Amino acid sequence: MVQTNTSNKFKDQWIVFIHDLQDAICKKLEAIDGKATFIEDKWERGADGGGGKTRVISNGNIFEKGGVNTSVVYGEVTDTMRKQLKINGEQWFAAGLSLVIHPQNPFVPTVHCNYRYFELYENGEVADRWFGGGTDLTPYYLFEEDATHFHQTYKNICDQFDKAFYPEFKKTCDDYFVNTHRNNERRGIGGIFYDHKKPGEKQDAAFWMGFAKACGYAFLDAYIPIVEKRKDIPFNEQHKYWQEIRRGRYVEFNLVHDRGTIFGLKTNGRTESILMSLPPTVRFDYNYQPEKGSPEAALQEICLHPKDWIKENELDKMDADEWARRVNTTC
Amino acid sequence: MVQTNTSNKFKDQWIVFIHDLQDAICKKLEAIDGKATFIEDKWERGADGGGGKTRVISNGNIFEKGGVNTSVVYGEVTDTMRKQLKINGEQWFAAGLSLVIHPQNPFVPTVHCNYRYFELYENGEVADRWFGGGTDLTPYYLFEEDATHFHQTYKNICDQFDKAFYPEFKKTCDDYFVNTHRNNERRGIGGIFYDHKKPGEKQDAAFWMGFAKACGYAFLDAYIPIVEKRKDIPFNEQHKYWQEIRRGRYVEFNLVHDRGTIFGLKTNGRTESILMSLPPTVRFDYNYQPEKGSPEAALQEICLHPKDWIKENELDKMDADEWARRVNTTC
Repeated sequence: MVQTNTSNKFKDQWIVFIHDLQDAICKKLEAIDGKATFIEDKWERGADGGGGKTRVISNGNIFEKGGVNTSVVYGEVTDTMRKQLKINGEQWFAAGLSLVIHPQNPFVPTVHCNYRYFELYENGEVADRWFGGGTDLTPYYLFEEDATHFHQTYKNICDQFDKAFYPEFKKTCDDYFVNTHRNNERRGIGGIFYDHKKPGEKQDAAFWMGFAKACGYAFLDAYIPIVEKRKDIPFNEQHKYWQEIRRGRYVEFNLVHDRGTIFGLKTNGRTESILMSLPPTVRFDYNYQPEKGSPEAALQEICLHPKDWIKENELDKMDADEWARRVNTTC
Repeated sequence: MVQTNTSNKFKDQWIVFIHDLQDAICKKLEAIDGKATFIEDKWERGADGGGGKTRVISNGNIFEKGGVNTSVVYGEVTDTMRKQLKINGEQWFAAGLSLVIHPQNPFVPTVHCNYRYFELYENGEVADRWFGGGTDLTPYYLFEEDATHFHQTYKNICDQFDKAFYPEFKKTCDDYFVNTHRNNERRGIGGIFYDHKKPGEKQDAAFWMGFAKACGYAFLDAYIPIVEKRKDIPFNEQHKYWQEIRRGRYVEFNLVHDRGTIFGLKTNGRTESILMSLPPTVRFDYNYQPEKGSPEAALQEICLHPKDWIKENELDKMDADEWARRVNTTC
C-alpha cells in the first residue's frame, strides 16, 4: 500500500485544498451563527488506510445541525469496488470535502456540497485520476431571487472555465438528486454536479483542480448571502412542520438513492460521518399534501419541475464586474 | 393475464384470510386506542393488475401513527423480478397483510408484521407457490417480561406446527432486521420471520396456510397485552427524545436494508403505502450515545446482542393450558 500513501503534486495540493476550505467554511459559518461552534472528531480507518476530520455543529442560533467533513482515505481495490464503482487498478486513493447544513429557520435553505478527487494505481504508478463535485440547495420555501443568486454564482464560476459547464452540470444535478419513488420529485432546486472528470489534453489535472477550488470557495458566496437575508424571518409551527416533512424527503433521497451514502454504509464506511447528512428532526406523515395554491405547494411544484434560474438575456448583459457587485463576496 | 386473475382454492382462502385479519386487527386497535380510527385508502395498480386497501391511524391516544395494509396484486414477470427476486415463470400473483404501529408512549413498543403468499404461473397453471411472514417487536425501553411474552406467544404457535420452527424463525428474524452499518445492531428484540416456504409432502399448502393464519391472529395475543400494560406509564421529554433517536434506526433499516421496501420503491410500488412504515417524528443526532448503565443503554445492548427470551426449563414445565391462562387471549 506504499503507493497510495506516497505523495504526488495533485494529491498533495488537493489535500491542502480540502483542509483549507474546511477551515474557511467552518470559520465563516461559526461567525454567522454567533452561538454554536464546530466540534471536531478525528477518525482513522484502522486496518485500512487513512481517516478523516468530521466537524459538526448543532443547536446554533441559525444552524440546527451541520457537518463539514474531510476525509483522506486509500487502500487496495476490492471486488465490491470493482463491481459497484466499475474500476480496475490495484490501489486507490480518495480525498474530499463533504458538507451538509440544516438551518433552524424553515426560510433558510439546507445546503449540501461535496468535492472529491480519486486516484487509481497500477504497478506503483498513477493509472487513472478523476475529479467530481457539486453543490445543491434544498429550500423549504421558494424565493426565486435566492435560487437565481445561487445558480448565478456557480454559473459565473463555470463560465470562467468552460461555457459548456453550467448547463451540463446543472442538468446532471437535476438528474441526480431525484426521488424517483415520488414522481421524480427533486430534493431541492439543484445547483451543479459533475463526476468522473478525467484530465484531458486541454482540461488537464491543474484545470480540474482549479475548477474544484473555485467552486469550493464559491460556496460561501452562494450560500451565506441567502442565510443573511432569510435568517430573521419569523416562522411558526406550521412552517416548521413543513420543513420537517420536506426533511423526510431529504432522508428518503439520501438513504434510498444516494450512491455515496449507500456505498459507504454497505462497505464499512464511518457511519456517523456519513449520516451526519441526515436532518436533526424529521416527520413522516402518511400522504401529506400541501394546500393548493400555498407557498408549500409552490415549493413542491418547483421540485417536480426543475426550471432554468438564469435569464439568458440578463446574463448576457451582465459582465463579470456587475456580477461581482451583486455577490456579497466573502472570501 | 387471465391466469393471474382467476381463482384457486389457496389463493381465494388467502385473500379472505388477510382481509378478515385486517378487519380484526383494526377493530381491536381502534377499541384500545379509544380516540383515533383507521382511515382507508383503496388503490389500484392501474395498467398492472390488482390493488390494495391501506388503512392508517394517526394521532390517537395510544397510536401516534400506524398502518394495517392489505394488497392483492398480479402481473407479468418482468426482467427486474427475474433478477432481483430470482424467479422464473410467466405471471405472478402476490397478496399479503403488512402492519406497522408506532405508539406515542416510548414505553409501548413499535410492532411490525407481514404475512404474504405468492404464486407463479406457467402455461396457465400454477408452477410454484410459497408463503412468508413474521412479526417483530421494537421496544424503546426493555421490559424482559414483555419480550418473553411476545416470543412465548409465537413459540407456542410454532410448536403446534413444528417444534423446529421457533428456533429457526427466531434466528431468521434476528439475522434479517439488522443495521449492518451500526455494528450489526438489530432493529429491536425480534420475533419470528420465515420466507419462501414452499408446500412439501408433509407440510402442504394447507399446512402453511394454517400456520400463517395462526401467526396472523396471534398478533393480537402477542402485542395487545403489552400495550395495555405499558400505555399509562408516565413519560417525559427525555424518554420521547430517546424514542425518536431509536425511530431513526428504524428509518435507517427500512430505507437502507429492507428488501421489500427498497424493491417496492424502485419498481413503482405505491410509495405512500410502503412508507407508511416510517415513524411519525424522528431525530438524527450526530453520534448519539446513551448514558452508560442507563435503561437506554440496556435497550441498545440487547439490540447489539440478541438473546433467547424463552427459558427452556420453564417452557418444558408449561403445558398448553397454562400458556393459555397466561396469555390474555383476544380473538
